[in-house]
Formats: sequence, structure tokens, C-alpha cells
Amino acid sequence: MSVAEKFARLATRNAPGQEIRHQGGELHNLMRGGELPGIPVDFSHGDVDAFTPAPNAFEFFAAGVGLGGQQAYTEYRGAGNIRSELAEKLAAFTGAPVDAQDGTILTPGSQGALFLAVASAVTKGDKVAIVQPDYFANRKLVEFFEGEIVPVQIAYVGAETEAGLDLDQLQKAFMDGAKTFIFSNPNNPTGVVYSEAEIARIAELANKHGATVIVDQLYSRLRYSDASYAHLRASSIDPDKVITIMGPSKTESLSGYRLGVAFGAPHLVERMEKLQAIVSLRAAGYNQAVFQTWFSEPDGWMDERIRLHQAIRDDLLGVLRSVQGVSASTPRAGSYLFPRLPKLTLTGVDFVRILRLQAGVTVTPGTEFSPHCEDSVRLNFSQNHVAAVKAVERLAELVERYRQ
Amino acid sequence: MSVAEKFARLATRNAPGQEIRHQGGELHNLMRGGELPGIPVDFSHGDVDAFTPAPNAFEFFAAGVGLGGQQAYTEYRGAGNIRSELAEKLAAFTGAPVDAQDGTILTPGSQGALFLAVASAVTKGDKVAIVQPDYFANRKLVEFFEGEIVPVQIAYVGAETEAGLDLDQLQKAFMDGAKTFIFSNPNNPTGVVYSEAEIARIAELANKHGATVIVDQLYSRLRYSDASYAHLRASSIDPDKVITIMGPSKTESLSGYRLGVAFGAPHLVERMEKLQAIVSLRAAGYNQAVFQTWFSEPDGWMDERIRLHQAIRDDLLGVLRSVQGVSASTPRAGSYLFPRLPKLTLTGVDFVRILRLQAGVTVTPGTEFSPHCEDSVRLNFSQNHVAAVKAVERLAELVERYRQ
Repeated sequence: MSVAEKFARLATRNAPGQEIRHQGGELHNLMRGGELPGIPVDFSHGDVDAFTPAPNAFEFFAAGVGLGGQQAYTEYRGAGNIRSELAEKLAAFTGAPVDAQDGTILTPGSQGALFLAVASAVTKGDKVAIVQPDYFANRKLVEFFEGEIVPVQIAYVGAETEAGLDLDQLQKAFMDGAKTFIFSNPNNPTGVVYSEAEIARIAELANKHGATVIVDQLYSRLRYSDASYAHLRASSIDPDKVITIMGPSKTESLSGYRLGVAFGAPHLVERMEKLQAIVSLRAAGYNQAVFQTWFSEPDGWMDERIRLHQAIRDDLLGVLRSVQGVSASTPRAGSYLFPRLPKLTLTGVDFVRILRLQAGVTVTPGTEFSPHCEDSVRLNFSQNHVAAVKAVERLAELVERYRQ
Repeated sequence: MSVAEKFARLATRNAPGQEIRHQGGELHNLMRGGELPGIPVDFSHGDVDAFTPAPNAFEFFAAGVGLGGQQAYTEYRGAGNIRSELAEKLAAFTGAPVDAQDGTILTPGSQGALFLAVASAVTKGDKVAIVQPDYFANRKLVEFFEGEIVPVQIAYVGAETEAGLDLDQLQKAFMDGAKTFIFSNPNNPTGVVYSEAEIARIAELANKHGATVIVDQLYSRLRYSDASYAHLRASSIDPDKVITIMGPSKTESLSGYRLGVAFGAPHLVERMEKLQAIVSLRAAGYNQAVFQTWFSEPDGWMDERIRLHQAIRDDLLGVLRSVQGVSASTPRAGSYLFPRLPKLTLTGVDFVRILRLQAGVTVTPGTEFSPHCEDSVRLNFSQNHVAAVKAVERLAELVERYRQ
């Protein structure tokens, strides 16, 4: 494949956060009616002005700057003392040991961890099982490394106590030669959480077929009242075949610092570090110091954050469910809603663009997450509560306007 | 190539900054004599405690944090206002227009820019001309993308007014099908600067053969008294075929913030942004604000920094040249010395390790930069002046101890 072809596949035009580069242009021919006034809400990512960074983040950064050279130039995998502290917290959180020295790498955001992890496991022609729908970068990363995607569906609509993973499809993917499985848990964009039985079965199948599993647990701290959670790395899975990815960018609102962490199989972490050495050297040195605030928030801070998100979730679900033909599952974790819209006179992507132009509401098209989700949109509801409700009311109004 | 083979080639064991992971082990059998006392000096990178970050960097960072969400979540290519400001400064510095909107991308360090630039130009089987010796990541990046390296030598020893590039070799590389040429100017590790005639000829050859040129100008601000400098992008080169890379990590000591910039051909910048979206999303948002200090240092600040570095350079050259069999060219820019050592009883890599263990002096083996430089070591002399002189005296003493 030529480099031009490779990049033609790597479209970011509809990716969250890139909307500023869109032009109105030909969309005006499709528009009906005028603009809907209201405070613009960008549901493509969380609003760190509404949910501000975890306490002390800036102070830890400032202290890191104060340390000078030792904090600026860490090992490529990150400062040893910070990895040690983090490994203890992550072991306690996930319920299985974490090797600070050989099994942990700090990265520029969890995106950085995901890139390195996929690169360390997948090369041209390799079959890779990925979930549909799931975080859009999973697909793009496999495509960039010229792997072959083997999709596995989740029956997420109405799933209450599981993700609805099609375990037969996963087994078939492994039997057909997939040596890597990548998935997010909680699932992005649907907010479903894999049940203990699903996690146990993933481990069993991976062990049987010698597959490596990369699990993105970015949202695993933000779980609503009734959600139990099973960490894959604490299951029966071969510890040398699993990489877990987390980071404080979302729930903890630290995205501006670009911090992520991958932990697990030492031979994969070693590859990840070799690659990080030529990709970006290291997570920004001073920024690494901010990891010290993570899992060390004041008592009650996380509970309160969960409570506030749950309240927004419920209000937005109320508005969405009042619209005829909209179906919206209740996310059990994370801050995404992934409603299905009724049939419209516009394609999903055009509706998303017009929604932004006419109503100041930015959402992400469902096709970023699965080719089968053209009728869905993703909303990150980590927003100002009142503004988010009003914005979803405008979304509902435009659904009526463009209903088929 | 399997993923395991791919990573086996990507060795970082001797890369600068990774020395902490080395064990003494079998080296003890090779050692002669005892330890040499003195303040340890790590010449593998600059000492940002000796040469502190450019003024106001932290204040700009703090102001970025204060801006909240708009600074945390920028476009993948970086915040528009920061790109605009930077494009003007870079156009003035390099003497050719810079397109802030379509021709500029902010990256996590200049390493990030180099990774994205090589990825956007090179894929499996492509021939890529690289200079020997040159920055070690150039070779590793081409290998990672499974390109085929076509080496081009520089006759840097004693080169006074040019880099000594073998232009016939470069022409032959292009005639043999190399479609990309990557080089650093000033050259890392030798400190030679390409003459105006060399730059003009590179442009002419690249134009004739339709080749893309990636030029790493990381050290182009730190030039000693007599050094003139020609910017490739201001030559006759087709502007759609050149990417220039810079950043404030070295001369300006801002490495702890991980900031770099690539500017040039819009179609390549577009690819770089697509890839950055799945590699690390963006240069850390708050950190991007620190770019505002760059090229805006107080009057005289850069001149003083150059003067201090030149003084260290001259003192270290004095010590090195007093050792029989050591040859050391005078770098005309940057903060690297790349002396050749006389024949020793140890391999270059073993000498480097023993130098660290016995004398507390960390340098980088010449083989990181060229397979033909086993007898050389690289020193980044951006260090405490007095400590650096003492450290090079210890290096000289160990050369005597291990001389063949």
C-alpha cells in the first residue's frame, strides 16, 4: 500500500474535536428553518470548565518544574518514582499486581498508550478482533499498521448487566487466526460494562488461542450506582498476554496535561518503550508529576463527581426518550450517551454538521464507532448540567425538523 | 516482517537517557583501576538546571491552564492562535512564508514532529536517503516503517565552512529511487552546518528527482560567532516537497514541556495531523501555551546563551585536544562535541559504560549515529561549565587507562 493510500484511509474529518475545520458550504441547500439560539455545547468531549481538573494538579505540575532536570528528562517509560507510586495504586484498583519497573509505561495520554500497545502487537496482515461499536481509534490503529479487522458485535441496546458481546463471534475470530483483541471497558460509546462472565470468557478464549488482549479501561472509575466491574487483568488471563490502559484525562478532567499509562506484559511494555523513544521520547516530564494527584483525590471527590454525572445522564435520557423514535440505553459507566435517532431526511453525518451550524450542538457521528451505527450519535455528557439539557432539547427540536 | 523482528531492530539500549537501565554485570571483568571521584555529568542531554528554561515559560503554562477547556482541547494540529503567532516568527527566522492554517502542526517535542513527518512520507520498501553520521532516530524511524536506508556520508572532520556532504552519493541515491531525504542542520552529532552551496544543491537535486526533504533544524538558533546558515525552505526547493522541524527543547531548555513544530508542505502536514490524532491526539494543550515564550526571549538572552556555550565548547576542546590520539572538530552550531578517541582495549560501547561506572561521565556511543563511528562519542556540552571540564578531564584519564 502506498503512503498516500494509507493516509487516505486514516480520515479524521468527522473525529471529535476537529469540527472547527468544517466549512458550511453545500450544507446550506439541505437546511430547513432558522438557527436555534442557546449556549453552544460541544458534546464531542468533556467540558473541563464545567468539571474542573482534579485538585492539586497544577500544584503537582509546578513542583515538577521545580525539580528541574530530573523531572524534565525521565526514562522513556517515565520517572521511576512516579511509576512506583502509580503501580501500587493501580494494583489496588484492579486487584492484581503491577510491576512498576518492567510492566508500566507512562504515555502522552491514553491515546499514546493505545497507539504504542497496538504497534507492539500488530503488523501488516495480522488479524485483529475489534468490537463494534467501539472507540474509533481502535479501527484506525489497526488500519494504520495494515492489520486485518475482524469485527465482533456487542448487542448493547437494552443490555443491563453485560455488554452483550457476541462470544461466538469472538471465538470464531480467534479460530480464524486473530492474535490480538482490542476493546474498551466500559465501552465507548455505549457505556455498557462487561459482566464478570463475559470477562471470564474473554480470558478463557484468549488463553486457549494464545491471543494478546489490549483493554482500554479509561472510564473504569466513573461507574454509576449499580454497576459492578470486572478487571480483565484480575481474571484467569495469562498476565503475559494482557495490556491494560488507563489515564486521568476524562473523569479527572486532566486532558490538558496529556497523561496515560499502560501496564501489563513486560515484553510488550518493552516494545512500547522502544517505540515511544522515536515517537515522542516520553510523556512530558513536568506533566508526569501530575500523576501524583490521581487516585489520591480528597475523600468523597470521586463520589460527588459520579453523582453529578449521573444526574446529568438521567436528565438527558429524559429529554431524549420523550422524542418519538429515539431510543437511548442507560450507560452504566463513563460519560457517553449513544442514542439512536429516527429516520431523517439527512445522512447521519450531514445531520451532525447541521446540528452544529443551526443549534450550536456538537456531537460525534455514530459511523466513527461502527459502520452499523449510521443512525446514532455520541454525546459526552460531562458538561454544564443546565446548558447540556437545553442543548439536547435543541437536538430534539432538529430531529423533529428533519424527521422523514 | 513479524512484529517481534520489527522491534528487535528498534534497539534503545544505548540511546541517550536510558543509561539508568544498564546493569554493571560482566563489565567488571574488563575494568582497570578504581573510580575517579567528581560531580557526575550526564552529557547524553543538556542540563536544564545549568541552563534553565527560557524566561516566562512557566507563567505562560500557568496562563494556559487558566484558559481552561479551550487550551486543553485544541485542534489536533494545535491551537489556531498559537500557530498563527508562531508562523510569523518562523517565517521571519527562516526567510520564507509559513502557512499557519494549513502548513503548521504543533507536536509533542521535535521528536514527535520527526516521527509524524517520516510516517507521512515513507512506507514499506521505500528508499530513504539519510546522512551518516546523523541523529540516530532518523535511521530507526526509517527502519520502523520498513523503508530501505540509503546512506550518504558527510566528511565532517575538519569541515570548516560546510558539512562535507557527499553530493555525488546523494545524487546517486535519488537516481537509484530514493524519494525522501532526511537530515539535521546543524548536524547532530558533529555540529557542522551545511553551506549555502550544499543547501542549494540539495534543493536542485530534490527538485530534479521529485524527492521530499525532511530537515531537522532543532539547533539552528544556537550558532557560534562565525557561522552563516542557509534555510533549505528559503532555497529554490519546491515548497510542496519540504518539511522543516524545530522546537524549543534544546537551546531554550524547554524539553520538560515536550514541544515541537513542523511546517511546510500542506499535504504532508495534513497526513501528520491525521496520524497525530491516533498517536497522542495533540501536543499537551496547556503546554502549547509555552510556545509564546519562543523567539520572544528578552533582548540579549540568546546572545548570552550562545556566548556561554561557546566558552564551554572551547574549554572542552582544549582538554580533548591535549590527549594524544584524540581528534575533535570545532562545532559551529548546537551543543554537541563528537570527538574521535584513539584505539582502546575496549569496544566503544563498553568504554562508554565503564566511563559512566568509573567516572560518573555519561556520553553516547558513536555507533548510535553511524556504523562507521565506533571510535567516537557524543557529548552534549550544555552543562555546568566547571563540572563539564572536570568530567572531560576524567574522560581523558580513562582514555589513558584503556589506551591500546
